[in-house]
Amino acid sequence: MSRIALVTVGDELLNGAVVDTSTAWLGDQLAIEGHDLVLSISVQDDLAAISDAILAAVARADAVIVAGGLGPTSDDLTRLGVARAARVEVEQRKELVELISARYAARKLQVPSQAFVMADLPIGANALTNNSGSAPGIFMVIDSVPLFALPGVPHEMRDMFIGEVVPELQKSFSGAQRYTVILRVSLLGESMISERLGEWERTLPSGVSVAYLASLGDVEVKVSASNSAQAHDYAARAAELIGDSIYAIDEARLPRSTLASAVLHLLRNEGATLATAESLTGGGLGYLLTEIPGASEIYLGGAIAYQAESKHQLADVPEELISIRGTVDAQVAKAMARGIRQRLDSTWALSTTGVAGPGEFEGHPAGTLFVGVSSAAGERAFKVVLTGQMADDRARVRGASAAHALDLLRRCIAGLPIGAQARFITEE
Amino acid sequence: MSRIALVTVGDELLNGAVVDTSTAWLGDQLAIEGHDLVLSISVQDDLAAISDAILAAVARADAVIVAGGLGPTSDDLTRLGVARAARVEVEQRKELVELISARYAARKLQVPSQAFVMADLPIGANALTNNSGSAPGIFMVIDSVPLFALPGVPHEMRDMFIGEVVPELQKSFSGAQRYTVILRVSLLGESMISERLGEWERTLPSGVSVAYLASLGDVEVKVSASNSAQAHDYAARAAELIGDSIYAIDEARLPRSTLASAVLHLLRNEGATLATAESLTGGGLGYLLTEIPGASEIYLGGAIAYQAESKHQLADVPEELISIRGTVDAQVAKAMARGIRQRLDSTWALSTTGVAGPGEFEGHPAGTLFVGVSSAAGERAFKVVLTGQMADDRARVRGASAAHALDLLRRCIAGLPIGAQARFITEE
Repeated sequence: MSRIALVTVGDELLNGAVVDTSTAWLGDQLAIEGHDLVLSISVQDDLAAISDAILAAVARADAVIVAGGLGPTSDDLTRLGVARAARVEVEQRKELVELISARYAARKLQVPSQAFVMADLPIGANALTNNSGSAPGIFMVIDSVPLFALPGVPHEMRDMFIGEVVPELQKSFSGAQRYTVILRVSLLGESMISERLGEWERTLPSGVSVAYLASLGDVEVKVSASNSAQAHDYAARAAELIGDSIYAIDEARLPRSTLASAVLHLLRNEGATLATAESLTGGGLGYLLTEIPGASEIYLGGAIAYQAESKHQLADVPEELISIRGTVDAQVAKAMARGIRQRLDSTWALSTTGVAGPGEFEGHPAGTLFVGVSSAAGERAFKVVLTGQMADDRARVRGASAAHALDLLRRCIAGLPIGAQARFITEE
Repeated sequence: MSRIALVTVGDELLNGAVVDTSTAWLGDQLAIEGHDLVLSISVQDDLAAISDAILAAVARADAVIVAGGLGPTSDDLTRLGVARAARVEVEQRKELVELISARYAARKLQVPSQAFVMADLPIGANALTNNSGSAPGIFMVIDSVPLFALPGVPHEMRDMFIGEVVPELQKSFSGAQRYTVILRVSLLGESMISERLGEWERTLPSGVSVAYLASLGDVEVKVSASNSAQAHDYAARAAELIGDSIYAIDEARLPRSTLASAVLHLLRNEGATLATAESLTGGGLGYLLTEIPGASEIYLGGAIAYQAESKHQLADVPEELISIRGTVDAQVAKAMARGIRQRLDSTWALSTTGVAGPGEFEGHPAGTLFVGVSSAAGERAFKVVLTGQMADDRARVRGASAAHALDLLRRCIAGLPIGAQARFITEE
């Protein structure tokens, strides 16, 4: 297992402007490849700080990754920082000048003179190909330790890591290959999962490991072993213990499933179609569903029925119903789902209405959500009550509401019980 | 301005298990207090690595914050790491033993023997009060540099930082306050902006700084100075040089503007309302607009007209038009905008249709976008051609398309020129 150190560069990482997601992503990818991220150093856009951090990293690791500071502006100092750490000068590379010119020409843009600073490389370094941006990366050996400098923009960093760093690390270090199967669990807390798996986890042989990664309304349970069959066997047992909150089982290196892709997969198997009518989620369900390539074969479209009147205009909710019951209501959720299903003639329809906050609406507190599901069998409605910190943040109410709606639809399509998985969900 | 360094401790920070949000939170809080987070080091739960990182931090900063590794389990090694860096032993503190016992007694729990390890402190250190958890923090001076060790659990870390660290830093350092004004620029590359500002930047007095932060389709230009008036003056000059691609000017400590909030702001000033009809963006415009609290006063709702038929069913696009011209078409974009504006009786309407990919559709390559804008003055349509890597990634085509659509609407409402900002945009 080789020891990797990371240096991330940029004022924005230290002044609170951005939450750094690259370190966790790289840590995860390196672990999958059988390497161990042992150290991560973040520094400002400061030449001495960058070269200092690189030397500290080089002294403590078998390979070093640097991310950020490769752009064309005056505060992009990684090229000079790598050169300083290696005690060499930078030189302009003709082939990179041409590459940068060609890149701008392809987009029919003139090259700003500033951009050519990206053609500078430390003497003795090689360029790493950037397929998704203008700034080339840098490969250089410092004190016998290979160093890879990548762009800081997350998707450019990721593409270059996968395209350039992974193959090189595989050549240099024979990582003990690990196979990981990921169980995707919706809307079940990490401690609940841990309670269900805890006893079994203590019986695992060495070489088999289980790790959790929680994000809003979603937990990944990663089961890793030294070969694929073993990883799948242990993952299958973990899936049995966790139960029907698992919506997908993924291989670590394949595209990741989402709740939306799991729902589309179920519908595709049934030859069914889907429409949506969204108030609280404001288009979020549609956006999550259409994220999946090929969604248009199953997802017909829907209404964003945000203001009260548009619920009638776009989803045929009777005006009397809204005047009697308001918009945050189980009957309205059912009417929205029924209305859009009839308009678009879909097999299923899903609706949301509720209070995103801040503050209450029509007497309901922020975090109140009604979900409607319509099919040939009729309409069902569910009430979800988000509380505490979850209800205080508009973005989290909206994100969690979309996840709850998709998970409730998944359970309706698959005929799974509802309410057993969470006490704050009731059928209305 | 005092220079602060941070050491975060925990395997989970480096193996991909969690995204570290504490660094950004601390960086932001320190900046507000007039301090400067200059370095952040993350290490595993390893004694030598912890003490090594502490010494590196002490050598480079006026004060050091350590977060994590203070719990009762065998992998909580920060107490020993601080002692090792300070070249002293740890000793058990009687008052902390009593505190820990009392804490468990109050919750009617027996104290696990393990818990008393939290009563150990390096010789010469003082305890910091933990009001939200069991583990005391540590205050210690190492090589004349004050060091604060806080728990890693985010809410415990935050409480102890505010209760114990902030007052101590205020006593020790009179922070030089910085004021930052943020120019938000849509759809103009970082190097283009740098070209417009470069000459002016070289004339800035010391104490005034400019930094760029790019994300998909959006660049922040941060202008900082030692007082508010100066920051605003220099920001105003930068705004003149950049031009009409600036959609908002924000104060650093206030909620951030987005393209959607800027559009809603313009509409609010006109007393106008908005509706959307989305094909390519699949609900993304609605989701971005409804992210803004109070959006419902202006944004009425819209159609997600994803399949061809739903363009007719939800936005009254004539079926003959689609059968003649297909769905990826300027006339269709105009018809979608006109149709939804008439249905919802809004002042303005915005539509998208195009090809998200992967692969071409109706003979148009991925990255082809038509945007329709409708108002009382009639309809306009714009063609945007995303190319290269931007067109190869479905998520990026969708995100960039939403940004282009909102920016085109902003320009239409404000009467700004279109096409001058980018040659790959044409009016149809």
